[in-house]
Amino acid sequence: MTVSPEDLSAAYRGQKVLITGGAGFIGSNLARRLVDLGAFVTVVDSLIPDYGGNLFNLSKYQDRLQLNIADVRDQYSMNYLVQGQNYLFNLAGQVSHTDSMQNPYTDLEINVRAQVSILEACRNYHPSIRILFTSTRQVYGKPVRLPVDENHPIDPVDVNGINKTAAEKYHLLYGHLYGIPVSVLRLTNVYGPRMRIMDARQTFIGLWLRQIIQGQTIRVFGDGQQLRDLNYVDDVVDAMLVASSLPAAVGQVYNLGGEPISLIDLAKQIVDANENGSYELIPFPPERKAIDIGSYYGNYSKIYSALGWEPKVSLKMGLEQSLSYYRKNISRYL
Amino acid sequence: MTVSPEDLSAAYRGQKVLITGGAGFIGSNLARRLVDLGAFVTVVDSLIPDYGGNLFNLSKYQDRLQLNIADVRDQYSMNYLVQGQNYLFNLAGQVSHTDSMQNPYTDLEINVRAQVSILEACRNYHPSIRILFTSTRQVYGKPVRLPVDENHPIDPVDVNGINKTAAEKYHLLYGHLYGIPVSVLRLTNVYGPRMRIMDARQTFIGLWLRQIIQGQTIRVFGDGQQLRDLNYVDDVVDAMLVASSLPAAVGQVYNLGGEPISLIDLAKQIVDANENGSYELIPFPPERKAIDIGSYYGNYSKIYSALGWEPKVSLKMGLEQSLSYYRKNISRYL
Repeated sequence: MTVSPEDLSAAYRGQKVLITGGAGFIGSNLARRLVDLGAFVTVVDSLIPDYGGNLFNLSKYQDRLQLNIADVRDQYSMNYLVQGQNYLFNLAGQVSHTDSMQNPYTDLEINVRAQVSILEACRNYHPSIRILFTSTRQVYGKPVRLPVDENHPIDPVDVNGINKTAAEKYHLLYGHLYGIPVSVLRLTNVYGPRMRIMDARQTFIGLWLRQIIQGQTIRVFGDGQQLRDLNYVDDVVDAMLVASSLPAAVGQVYNLGGEPISLIDLAKQIVDANENGSYELIPFPPERKAIDIGSYYGNYSKIYSALGWEPKVSLKMGLEQSLSYYRKNISRYL
Repeated sequence: MTVSPEDLSAAYRGQKVLITGGAGFIGSNLARRLVDLGAFVTVVDSLIPDYGGNLFNLSKYQDRLQLNIADVRDQYSMNYLVQGQNYLFNLAGQVSHTDSMQNPYTDLEINVRAQVSILEACRNYHPSIRILFTSTRQVYGKPVRLPVDENHPIDPVDVNGINKTAAEKYHLLYGHLYGIPVSVLRLTNVYGPRMRIMDARQTFIGLWLRQIIQGQTIRVFGDGQQLRDLNYVDDVVDAMLVASSLPAAVGQVYNLGGEPISLIDLAKQIVDANENGSYELIPFPPERKAIDIGSYYGNYSKIYSALGWEPKVSLKMGLEQSLSYYRKNISRYL
């Protein structure tokens, strides 16, 4: 099965779509794409500092979508906002693993309690809304086998992973009990335009891209042999649109994923794509080592078989497009 | 390995022990036992209506232990209370599955946020405290194989199960990251003196015991063929004392469990033990059916092999002792 651009356009044209975390990295890329597809988009974002929401991410699209500043923990706002929507892309979240260890309460509030608010709003005011929830590879913890498929044991090794696991289970439970059509995607490292690059809160790749543009040396933890898989944000947006448009995805959990690459090779590729720069190996900081998961890459054959999704943007192309975007707009991301 | 009564006495005599949820069913039985073993016991309980805390459970022991009424969500109280303790038996919780579906926020507050409070208190004020956390078979959800061992997939099917899963993971994570010596027991259906019998919030067995004593017909949902395993509370207290006293249990998760019995046979045994009474089969109420897990019984060979624990009290003996207790004290449990 494959979903053509025409299929996506037919699925979303004229549809009402709510995106929580819609001023953030993935949410804003999704919002822009949905506007281009002819959807009526409402973006909800709290613009909490450090969380990735950035109104510049919606530049040139602000007249073509509805922007609603609100915290998803606010039950009454959510009760209102879900009504009349055809789709909910639920991306709001706190994503920093290290922040989650420093302040577990905030992570719990945002990644679990707020998710219950959203689901209660849907249960009570609009149980037929189509929900896509973005979970994370972090729910698997330290892999016991590679590549990691969806049946790998769930054993998160940090607070953020525990809370995202609970949020994912809540979504599936509300789907099962109250008939809300829910799908879950477990994302791996996502990169591309509009991510947070000020620090490593969203992913280390953002930090590396900024460092290389600013002429700083990229610092790779450990021996750099740890494997990761990466997805360019356009591929992730594709997966979200495809999964939400197909009934076969209801009640399902899918990994995304890509080609494994070692961190040291990734650093080299970033230097190559930038045609300038350097990297160095440094020892793991202890607070990172404690929650490091070693190598990870995902098996995404389930979503490929069921929905026809696979990543299309090469790492080289994705890095070049990202670097080009940040070179032009870096002042908006510092 | 077996742990003799003398070993337990040596382990706990003169030790300072904090029990959260200590006026509840299992907590109060544990508190009484620890006082008898010569420990200095502090009971923390919020006495929130419907949660099982009942000061009558501590009758005749109130002069021999410290009673501290407080909500475990209260960070400052917990920061103070954990200091100077050798052991923490962390039993505070909301246990009703149906309540958790009606009000997911409260379940989340009590079963997750409060647990983070407790763990943060230990992390910041007393990281060497020995913690035993009581989890539940509910983390497994609907069994995919029987008996259920600790490697069975974790897939809770109700809000309570999701939250208890998160709480258990938090305990293990804090143990791993901050060196707090933590053990987890996954309890199955526990029954005996001092449980809640007013309704089925704690377990259906409490309700059945009250009904049979009051001359009402026990109502068994469905065809009554669902299997369960039961532990008498004294056996559970034994498991907690043994696990907390042995270094081999640090960082470990153990199932408790017992002989499987069908619900209809259990109803018959209760009628027999009471020497009077009746039961009937009725269809599942829809809100129960939605979260029913079919048959469950646990494999407890891990704790038997590692710590020498196995249940000792026969169902017949346990039911007789329970009925005798409630006949005498029923007014205190209505």
